[in-house]
Amino acid sequence: MPRDERPPEPLDPASLAQAVVALGPAWSLDEAGELVRTFRTPDFAAAMALANEIAALAEAAWHHPELRVGWGRLTVRLSTHDVGGVTRLDLDLAAQVEALAG
Amino acid sequence: MPRDERPPEPLDPASLAQAVVALGPAWSLDEAGELVRTFRTPDFAAAMALANEIAALAEAAWHHPELRVGWGRLTVRLSTHDVGGVTRLDLDLAAQVEALAG
Repeated sequence: MPRDERPPEPLDPASLAQAVVALGPAWSLDEAGELVRTFRTPDFAAAMALANEIAALAEAAWHHPELRVGWGRLTVRLSTHDVGGVTRLDLDLAAQVEALAG
Repeated sequence: MPRDERPPEPLDPASLAQAVVALGPAWSLDEAGELVRTFRTPDFAAAMALANEIAALAEAAWHHPELRVGWGRLTVRLSTHDVGGVTRLDLDLAAQVEALAG
């Protein structure tokens, strides 16, 4: 979350479901209630490069995902740990990630 | 694994257990039989920076871990997927990671 701000509230289930659909079919909520997208990439270096681009977005937003980098794939996991759920901070960053990866 | 080479055999359980101890107390085998170490870092950017250093080692060795980057932590997971176990390739890379992180 932005420094010195209180985190927003988690979205209610109906709003969250609608927001996930709006992000596009590549996004889903996992069993832990986190917002997740996996990207396929040509190799490890490409996954790492995409992770670095997303890390730059995250630093700018001061809201941080978990990034799982493997050979040919990158998984982005988003939730707002301070409030134990998905908030508009996660959705905003997910939308930026989506725009980046296009 | 290095390009154009066949992967080595997984280590037998006794040799593997000994090798994990030799790597140091921060390393362990998880329930999936992967070699794992988590580093604590001051923030997300530091975790990402360490991930990039490890990625460079992995590219040089042409053997790739899974890297999980989060706020203040980086988890490195190693196994040789082609043979379904931990091999000397994983131990060699783990030793390099250990030397890097000191």
